[in-house]
Amino acid sequence: MVSKTVSQFVVSPQQMQLDLKMVAADIWGTQAHVLMLQRTKIISQKCAADILQALAEIARMHGAGEFRIDPARGAQLTLEKEIVERAGERSGLSAHTARSRNDQVMVTELLFLREEVCGLAKQLEKTLRQLLVLAEEHVEWVMPGYTHMQPGKPTTVAHWALGYFGGLLRVHEALTGILDRYDFSPLGAVESFGTSWPIDREYVASLLGFSEVWEIPLDAISHRGFFQYELLQALSLGGIELSKIATDTLQYATFEYGFLELGNSVAQRLHPITGSSVMAQKKNPDALELLRASGNQIAGSLVAGFELLSGLPSGYNRDSRELKEYVELGSRKFLSGLEVLFEVLSTVTFRRERMEELVRANYSLTTDIADYVSQESGLPYRLVYKIVGKAVDELMEKGLSLEKLRLDRLEHFAAEHDVSLSLQEDSLKAVLRPKEALARRVHRGGAAPESTRASLKRLEARLAAAEEKRKGFLERIAEARERTSREIAQVLGRREGEDS
Amino acid sequence: MVSKTVSQFVVSPQQMQLDLKMVAADIWGTQAHVLMLQRTKIISQKCAADILQALAEIARMHGAGEFRIDPARGAQLTLEKEIVERAGERSGLSAHTARSRNDQVMVTELLFLREEVCGLAKQLEKTLRQLLVLAEEHVEWVMPGYTHMQPGKPTTVAHWALGYFGGLLRVHEALTGILDRYDFSPLGAVESFGTSWPIDREYVASLLGFSEVWEIPLDAISHRGFFQYELLQALSLGGIELSKIATDTLQYATFEYGFLELGNSVAQRLHPITGSSVMAQKKNPDALELLRASGNQIAGSLVAGFELLSGLPSGYNRDSRELKEYVELGSRKFLSGLEVLFEVLSTVTFRRERMEELVRANYSLTTDIADYVSQESGLPYRLVYKIVGKAVDELMEKGLSLEKLRLDRLEHFAAEHDVSLSLQEDSLKAVLRPKEALARRVHRGGAAPESTRASLKRLEARLAAAEEKRKGFLERIAEARERTSREIAQVLGRREGEDS
Amino acid sequence: MVSKTVSQFVVSPQQMQLDLKMVAADIWGTQAHVLMLQRTKIISQKCAADILQALAEIARMHGAGEFRIDPARGAQLTLEKEIVERAGERSGLSAHTARSRNDQVMVTELLFLREEVCGLAKQLEKTLRQLLVLAEEHVEWVMPGYTHMQPGKPTTVAHWALGYFGGLLRVHEALTGILDRYDFSPLGAVESFGTSWPIDREYVASLLGFSEVWEIPLDAISHRGFFQYELLQALSLGGIELSKIATDTLQYATFEYGFLELGNSVAQRLHPITGSSVMAQKKNPDALELLRASGNQIAGSLVAGFELLSGLPSGYNRDSRELKEYVELGSRKFLSGLEVLFEVLSTVTFRRERMEELVRANYSLTTDIADYVSQESGLPYRLVYKIVGKAVDELMEKGLSLEKLRLDRLEHFAAEHDVSLSLQEDSLKAVLRPKEALARRVHRGGAAPESTRASLKRLEARLAAAEEKRKGFLERIAEARERTSREIAQVLGRREGEDS
Amino acid sequence: MVSKTVSQFVVSPQQMQLDLKMVAADIWGTQAHVLMLQRTKIISQKCAADILQALAEIARMHGAGEFRIDPARGAQLTLEKEIVERAGERSGLSAHTARSRNDQVMVTELLFLREEVCGLAKQLEKTLRQLLVLAEEHVEWVMPGYTHMQPGKPTTVAHWALGYFGGLLRVHEALTGILDRYDFSPLGAVESFGTSWPIDREYVASLLGFSEVWEIPLDAISHRGFFQYELLQALSLGGIELSKIATDTLQYATFEYGFLELGNSVAQRLHPITGSSVMAQKKNPDALELLRASGNQIAGSLVAGFELLSGLPSGYNRDSRELKEYVELGSRKFLSGLEVLFEVLSTVTFRRERMEELVRANYSLTTDIADYVSQESGLPYRLVYKIVGKAVDELMEKGLSLEKLRLDRLEHFAAEHDVSLSLQEDSLKAVLRPKEALARRVHRGGAAPESTRASLKRLEARLAAAEEKRKGFLERIAEARERTSREIAQVLGRREGEDS
Repeated sequence: MVSKTVSQFVVSPQQMQLDLKMVAADIWGTQAHVLMLQRTKIISQKCAADILQALAEIARMHGAGEFRIDPARGAQLTLEKEIVERAGERSGLSAHTARSRNDQVMVTELLFLREEVCGLAKQLEKTLRQLLVLAEEHVEWVMPGYTHMQPGKPTTVAHWALGYFGGLLRVHEALTGILDRYDFSPLGAVESFGTSWPIDREYVASLLGFSEVWEIPLDAISHRGFFQYELLQALSLGGIELSKIATDTLQYATFEYGFLELGNSVAQRLHPITGSSVMAQKKNPDALELLRASGNQIAGSLVAGFELLSGLPSGYNRDSRELKEYVELGSRKFLSGLEVLFEVLSTVTFRRERMEELVRANYSLTTDIADYVSQESGLPYRLVYKIVGKAVDELMEKGLSLEKLRLDRLEHFAAEHDVSLSLQEDSLKAVLRPKEALARRVHRGGAAPESTRASLKRLEARLAAAEEKRKGFLERIAEARERTSREIAQVLGRREGEDS
Repeated sequence: MVSKTVSQFVVSPQQMQLDLKMVAADIWGTQAHVLMLQRTKIISQKCAADILQALAEIARMHGAGEFRIDPARGAQLTLEKEIVERAGERSGLSAHTARSRNDQVMVTELLFLREEVCGLAKQLEKTLRQLLVLAEEHVEWVMPGYTHMQPGKPTTVAHWALGYFGGLLRVHEALTGILDRYDFSPLGAVESFGTSWPIDREYVASLLGFSEVWEIPLDAISHRGFFQYELLQALSLGGIELSKIATDTLQYATFEYGFLELGNSVAQRLHPITGSSVMAQKKNPDALELLRASGNQIAGSLVAGFELLSGLPSGYNRDSRELKEYVELGSRKFLSGLEVLFEVLSTVTFRRERMEELVRANYSLTTDIADYVSQESGLPYRLVYKIVGKAVDELMEKGLSLEKLRLDRLEHFAAEHDVSLSLQEDSLKAVLRPKEALARRVHRGGAAPESTRASLKRLEARLAAAEEKRKGFLERIAEARERTSREIAQVLGRREGEDS
Repeated sequence: MVSKTVSQFVVSPQQMQLDLKMVAADIWGTQAHVLMLQRTKIISQKCAADILQALAEIARMHGAGEFRIDPARGAQLTLEKEIVERAGERSGLSAHTARSRNDQVMVTELLFLREEVCGLAKQLEKTLRQLLVLAEEHVEWVMPGYTHMQPGKPTTVAHWALGYFGGLLRVHEALTGILDRYDFSPLGAVESFGTSWPIDREYVASLLGFSEVWEIPLDAISHRGFFQYELLQALSLGGIELSKIATDTLQYATFEYGFLELGNSVAQRLHPITGSSVMAQKKNPDALELLRASGNQIAGSLVAGFELLSGLPSGYNRDSRELKEYVELGSRKFLSGLEVLFEVLSTVTFRRERMEELVRANYSLTTDIADYVSQESGLPYRLVYKIVGKAVDELMEKGLSLEKLRLDRLEHFAAEHDVSLSLQEDSLKAVLRPKEALARRVHRGGAAPESTRASLKRLEARLAAAEEKRKGFLERIAEARERTSREIAQVLGRREGEDS
Repeated sequence: MVSKTVSQFVVSPQQMQLDLKMVAADIWGTQAHVLMLQRTKIISQKCAADILQALAEIARMHGAGEFRIDPARGAQLTLEKEIVERAGERSGLSAHTARSRNDQVMVTELLFLREEVCGLAKQLEKTLRQLLVLAEEHVEWVMPGYTHMQPGKPTTVAHWALGYFGGLLRVHEALTGILDRYDFSPLGAVESFGTSWPIDREYVASLLGFSEVWEIPLDAISHRGFFQYELLQALSLGGIELSKIATDTLQYATFEYGFLELGNSVAQRLHPITGSSVMAQKKNPDALELLRASGNQIAGSLVAGFELLSGLPSGYNRDSRELKEYVELGSRKFLSGLEVLFEVLSTVTFRRERMEELVRANYSLTTDIADYVSQESGLPYRLVYKIVGKAVDELMEKGLSLEKLRLDRLEHFAAEHDVSLSLQEDSLKAVLRPKEALARRVHRGGAAPESTRASLKRLEARLAAAEEKRKGFLERIAEARERTSREIAQVLGRREGEDS
């Protein structure tokens, strides 16, 4: 007999726990298969009705949380056993005709995962919408902008928030893209090689809401786990985004930056978890650190996925089922991260004065000054850059702020390049006011208020389109489920007809 | 002064070598930018013409292999220096107005990579077509089929080849999907924060053949390297496919399997490279091992990509430029792998007799027998499976082949289940002939000849659609390039007009 | 208040489950800390006795499975609460004096993990010993040897088994090497910066069985998670070994190779798990596939570990606690893989005839022949290699086996190189008998029986030394635990003395 | 004929470039092998002398940069060809007797890599020493200390620097640990299975400076690439350290923190590389960003290494040679990172006033106050923590600094807990002076000046021991090389004797 060590290795508690979540999907796949067997007359109507009746009872049991997977059989053969118990051997043992565990499991995973993916997409939409809200509320809030972690040019809180909108939207596109690319029904692939039974694969595909049949059986089964690998890829992209936002917000929440204050629902002083056990003054951003960590660690699941698939021979190999654990792990990390991010974004308070104070102190209006000088003088920008650069260098050496910049020093350095700027005294003042500097960025995607509002409208439209796409999938799934129910009712009804 | 250690770290030989490949793209981006500066009157027509003239000369120099990157400046400032040398300071220093190295490099990378991606897609198409050819030539060649690396059911060489068609086509879809998702022009994002110059981003986008402007500057620059990361994801998917095909072919080329003979252009005995230096009888499949290795190792580039992006703050960070090295590495491994795979597939010879011999010996017609018995007797498959299973078990224990299966033994085991099969003597014979067994798989995607041919037509159509998509991108790029040329000619022409 | 979303993110069910396994280690660390506080007179003897008494009770409660972590506090503050409940506020709140959760958790993890590592090492020893047994039993069993997956030269089952001994032993060395390199007590590092309390770190280190104090507090806490990362590295090394052995055995268990038969405790036909649900003839090596998969996927945990640590600033960061989940995941995969491997190795049966038949058929004695010809003729090996090569090539083209090799053909090809071999007819016969060919490999590490037996003795000695090292760690830990108990007894005893 | 596509895939330019660096090692290994063949009388003295003479000439040619690898042969057969050209066919073709490319390449890689590893260790020592220097110079420089990126407790620049000493020393230990664990000579393993020639493996091992023979041939060759994988593991550990230090220094170099100023050899304003092309005020820490990136990306090479080894069958597989590229890549990134880090550390200037100003402003003396209050009052620390915590909370709400903490407010909050503190007015003053607070941390590893100096001595001793270990390896290698030369001279000398 297969030893306990081995059978617990092959049907591990971790696997059974995950399989249990997919039983409803397995039942649906089985219903579609049985309806097809009946329609193609591979089994009789009575036989089909017996099995469908049994499945209805099992679905109820599972819904009530009473379905248990027998570790000595695994999920699929437990389901068969439950069918046989209710439908009798003669009918029950036909549910598996023209099907193997291989295509059964694969369709189950696809049915389960496409709804999971829609769930992830929906949570993403919530966060995307919150970024738009945050941006709308802070269109005119000046914020220091950084490149190389050094002050670059001022920007706005709105633009900072929208800087993540595109990234997260691309994660949404990656997720729904997978649904497009794996919109094929593997049922009928059987072990990996099709069958001599006269099955109708198109009918099954339509009952389950797939657009198409997965043409080549060996292609289907050899690529079990690839939907999952692509999902891990999309999650890893999302992980990078989470981790970037966490890095920014951790930075902005430091004592030294002080751009923002986390909501009390995210961090509290003297709290048993987010306070320190020793340092009474601390308000620890644990949530942001773990957000960073959640994003970062998804790479691990991605690599496990790659490892499990790469180098396998064609046909079914048991290795591929292990991906399930990493899809669960990666999805959990991403989803919980997204939820926390939503909480962070919807409770954060920005410190307007602190940010403006920094913009004035950190020399980051230098470029706006140089742009202005170039625009007024007609001199090439990169020449002006050198002139302004030297003048600012001089200020920095003396520890003076940019507001102390004097025209005569600019002319002095211009003369070194044999040019004259011919600016009016005081003309620089306007540029030195951050808000006015920002108001000059009026191009498509610029940080001027009206440009920002125009951008917001465009992004809103892109979000709406993304939502539509996700809803379209869910509707298609719902319609397929209804159609399956109708066909089941018909088969069961006919039996009752017969019975009478 | 910045030390040599540091400057060689920041502008490394590796980076310069890769930057050199992108100079043509940089020139195009610069042309578009300068055309826009002129059109928006940010610079004069003369100034624009001077720069465009200089760029034309630099392009010729680069085409002749004479462009060198100055390690003390890096690629972008070397280009500026070359412009200034030709166009003079007054005009030349304006090429960089309203632009930063950040958006300049980013657009350069996108322009360069989208053609690279089309090149990868094209090589994929060649391999996909070869798989179709291989399949067409072997529609009726029986081959053992495996699951768990154990004999499962017979299949055909055609189905084996088509088992990889879908996987590689999905790699193609992943590649062109990236082109769709990053079809945005980042020019105008400047450092990360836009500009006070009245730029026209839509015009630049259209000159460069992008469908749209990358709306938010900080989104664009904060996501430098993400196109590359998604490309590495697609390459990793392709890597898994290469590695799987290599595993299969290595297996089939073993002495023990003996399904196929590699072409002499792939492996030769007593050859200094593919022969052994000690073992004279050997014909080593080095090419297949390195194909497996090429696919496997792409995960490394993927992880490096993740690492380089994850956790970075928003705005430009120098880390992201390092991805270039991994895109180069991963693409090289994938592309050279694809080329070798094409060579393998177009020179391989299958051994028909050996495969049929194994199919007869390895008990893998058991399922077809059980299917047949279930079909004839009307008994549920899974019941028949147990009956046939016991009969086959008995044969295996006795070391007898499946052809020795006798009806009375089947009836004997049927009786244990209180059923009778009522089969005709000799009725099993047909099923025991592999070709006839295969001819019974007539469903969509089945291995019967006519079904296989129908599948081939459908797959051919999918390949054609993929090719169309890739060509569409290339045409759009070509048109954009022509439009840029026309606009340049106009600006230069007008100058000549003025001159006269 | 910190929201439920956030607090469940920060103290997740997964984390609590793992923390629960470490409570005993936390209690020991706390005992040592309290003994030190008393010894340095930071707290009174009564206070210490109160806490130690409370800890004894909590340890009993935990031993009985009744300790629960309060999710609103996390593991460490739950322990404090339990102490305070038993020892009263005045004494109980002193347990945390001069300590932070940071050094508390870190020492807890080290105490816990060093025993885990010894457990892994012990399981490895069991497998290593089984490899020696397998080798001893098969010293003279000829087996085909492969390079590039092509027949190379014959070897023995003993040498095949010993080919993995070294690899697994290096995993053992990697594991115990970590114990050597992290043999430092972090207690007293407090948050990351030491303390103004007059603590005695050496005393604590000695009570806990560490060789040394972890000198620099910031070094200690900044490197939380590094022991774990190095453990994941060792596990990944082990994973590669598991995966290699699985690949070999999967190959050898194929129908085509047929070198071995898996034990019935590992795989059975018609079994609900290791049989097929459709293909009655199958005996699936699921256990080996999952062994391969277990090894492969450890890379994922390794990468997650890297990601979680890389790029963190110095001082404590919450991210590092996440490694716990990957250490658990990686250890579980490795340990269960090892257990199954042991089962595989101790029940496998090799098929002697099949292996000898292949050795005779697969031309792999070619090298032994060439060696022999070179030895007898005095011609350089690489010249003989060419001569023999051509003769074998001729046989292969004709489909003749190596036994048909004729001297005159050898002389014919020798003549092409202007040399003569001058061999006796029949002299090749001995070399063509696999056993005799193997008996000629008498060098250190050779496959000749006596050489193999000598190797076995040396490897046995290396295994014994590895076991000694692991036992040495466990003894040191046991002694430290006893010493802690004695000191506790003394403090408690003195109180009782006082009480009376 | 093997096609160009295939032969360039198998002997790629990348591989040849790396092989070229190892030719000297290959020559040494070949010399040792030939000396052994002569000593065991497998070849004649004349034959040995011919080959050794040829090798001496080839070594000179290689030293002069004139050795070229023939891509049609690969490195090993090019070497053989060069030998044959000089020593004649009769002698030259014997150099390969009793050896295969497999053990030849493996010993070449080990000989090459062990010196590479010593080089990495040496560069590490330089950085470690610089950390000690930095610490010595800043023993009393107060610096804010952080946990969770929030102000924790003050520390010193010395402790910050030493916080990385331990980590980098463990990288050194990991590197030399590999040398210990792979101190075995694989020569004599031949293809993977030993040989019928009467070789003396111990003699070869001693000539090449290995402590031992790699006992089992199949173990040796099946584990080609494992030294490299373990090296990649050590590099990845080093990568994490680089990346952490980069993160800290990037943070400390921000405008907002302002703890340090990078040396002009590391970053300069208005510089074509480290300045901005647009923002004249910028001094970009490109070197630090790329340091972070260099560390991070090593994970990619590690994963590629894992992928290339995991799941391979035993015996030689061509895949393993690909690791060479990742060892090169990873080593280059690590070594150049180390060099830049040394430059950063030896030119950085800390801003003492800025750091003290922050320590006074950021409430991070709270814990020292609470410690003091607990010490003076005798109340348990965690009770005092709550009292002080509330008082500090009150100050923070009012925007007052910690220096405004008043005893009566402390007593007020103490009263809420029914206790009294009975402190002297003014007694807190001393603790509120950062230097005095630090002077109280006098335990082992404490930040008080005398404790820090004692730690420095201990760490200096650990560094010296590490250096000794590395030097010991290099001396052993040098001695082995001399011994080989002596033996060669003897063989050549004897020939000259003969000749005369």
